[in-house]
Amino acid sequence: MSATRTACLAVIAVSLFLGIPAFGENNPDVVKLKAANATFDVALSKRDLAALDVIWAPDGRVTALHPPSKAVIVGWTAVRKSWEGAFANFPEMSVEMKDPNVRVIGDMALVTGIETFRGKLPNGNIVEFLAPTTNVYERHGDQWLLVHHHAGRAPQ
Amino acid sequence: MSATRTACLAVIAVSLFLGIPAFGENNPDVVKLKAANATFDVALSKRDLAALDVIWAPDGRVTALHPPSKAVIVGWTAVRKSWEGAFANFPEMSVEMKDPNVRVIGDMALVTGIETFRGKLPNGNIVEFLAPTTNVYERHGDQWLLVHHHAGRAPQ
Repeated sequence: MSATRTACLAVIAVSLFLGIPAFGENNPDVVKLKAANATFDVALSKRDLAALDVIWAPDGRVTALHPPSKAVIVGWTAVRKSWEGAFANFPEMSVEMKDPNVRVIGDMALVTGIETFRGKLPNGNIVEFLAPTTNVYERHGDQWLLVHHHAGRAPQ
Repeated sequence: MSATRTACLAVIAVSLFLGIPAFGENNPDVVKLKAANATFDVALSKRDLAALDVIWAPDGRVTALHPPSKAVIVGWTAVRKSWEGAFANFPEMSVEMKDPNVRVIGDMALVTGIETFRGKLPNGNIVEFLAPTTNVYERHGDQWLLVHHHAGRAPQ
């Protein structure tokens, strides 16, 4: 075996031992978080409050910041009401985050990306913008539940 | 001892046992996180890149989203450059988050709030706005280092 090959195998062995794949695309938590994040966007696009009830952690300390927010919305009751308000503002809407960035630290995970938002107002006008977004999840058993959502509105 | 008093003492005892004060204002992590968050805003207000070098985790996976961002900024080198850009745009600036909301989950913590931003442009014009903000910290030994910053710009 050449010295180069030995060195390569040693690097691979050390990487596996150190759990470097834990940061990769195939890490089971990353796969689950990307799926949870896509499910959240589908629920928003369907304006489905019942789906949000199981996507969010149902506690009094979850938080949200929407594009027009001037105060943090705290607790699931208030956050749910804020989604009801958004769904009333937009009889039709679609939300999609391509290529989310995922960071897992123990039982908490951070998902960041740019959402493409498209909504139809009650008067029929279309609103479209890019929404820089931060979602934070907490591990609950084998599930990741949303504990914070922050979406902004990038200038045109 | 009255039944009411016994019941109250029982509730206090159970609360202490369950560690409910861990969520409170006096929890050492919450105190440290509020201090770290205030230090971050002071560093921004002083446009002090050297201070940011020790406030942020110096890794290739930290992320930032600024008010005009249309893509996630990934890695300390790129995030640092984005602060250099902000400091060049604003020869003077001040940033303050009053009453931050803190959630600690193991070795990761979420700090949310509304920053008041005030900046002077090179032409002397003043820019002022409220910035809905999410900061995420990671525990490094006895310190909390910033791993994600997202600030938006609320409409007037």
